[in-house]
Amino acid sequence: MVLDRSDKPTGADNQQERLSAEWVVGFVDGEGCFFVGINRQPSMTMGWQVLPEFRVVQHEKDVAILKRLHEFFGFGQITTNHGDRKELRVRGIERLSEIVRFFRAHPLRTVKRSSFDCFAEVIEMMQQGDHLTAEGLEKIRKLASRMNRGAQNPQRPYARTPVVSAGG
Amino acid sequence: MVLDRSDKPTGADNQQERLSAEWVVGFVDGEGCFFVGINRQPSMTMGWQVLPEFRVVQHEKDVAILKRLHEFFGFGQITTNHGDRKELRVRGIERLSEIVRFFRAHPLRTVKRSSFDCFAEVIEMMQQGDHLTAEGLEKIRKLASRMNRGAQNPQRPYARTPVVSAGG
Repeated sequence: MVLDRSDKPTGADNQQERLSAEWVVGFVDGEGCFFVGINRQPSMTMGWQVLPEFRVVQHEKDVAILKRLHEFFGFGQITTNHGDRKELRVRGIERLSEIVRFFRAHPLRTVKRSSFDCFAEVIEMMQQGDHLTAEGLEKIRKLASRMNRGAQNPQRPYARTPVVSAGG
Repeated sequence: MVLDRSDKPTGADNQQERLSAEWVVGFVDGEGCFFVGINRQPSMTMGWQVLPEFRVVQHEKDVAILKRLHEFFGFGQITTNHGDRKELRVRGIERLSEIVRFFRAHPLRTVKRSSFDCFAEVIEMMQQGDHLTAEGLEKIRKLASRMNRGAQNPQRPYARTPVVSAGG
């Protein structure tokens, strides 16, 4: 049997092919988290820091998939989440804007989409600098409070300690 | 502006479009579970019942996505998993064979794939009736023990009570 190495390998033969956008949407619908933290920060203009982030958490045995997601997006940081869990984390308005663009073009299918919609609005406001005004900050706080909540995402807007205030 | 209603709606406009295969693979890579239970059953040929199942568990607020997965596969049962969690569950060799065919054609990308490979081998053995022989049952027990284990999937092969023995 002659193998032509130039043949494009199939998914079954090559697990290292680039992930597809649809796969990424499905995986993030299950495992992704859109998060807006609002932390006390007296040195900042409004006294509060708005810290949005996108992350995907996996058991460390599956860190390879976080690396492939990192490759897919072209940015993000892989770090320890807690104990034996790793996360791919994206921060920073420019990169989060790219995340928003991606999920606008490839919409989520679960209820996570409504958290994403709030998240996207926060990112767009921050791009305009709205988080640096009292009115903008208040609107962001409301958007954050509308994002999904759960035991893992305690709702603590305007927390006094640097904890996240909302996530989904 | 004239709207042509025959236009195919985009994903953003119509959340009820059929799920794509790639999305399903991504979502199952995150949220799916391949499971092989081996339960004491004195009335059966070998004294043990092999009960494989595929399931996807979600919070009840997201039962809509289980319905769409049900629509996608064309079978399965939506039922309460535990408390406020719902599951789409597929049992029965014929339907599980279809599940196996699907994930052979559209391979999983996380470590869940190795659990799936064991699961697929069990299903193929059962199609041949191998679970009705001592040798086959022993091999299935070994495959089940190689599937991913975790706190939620205690490894209890040949359990005396009807609990699942392995999952991933």
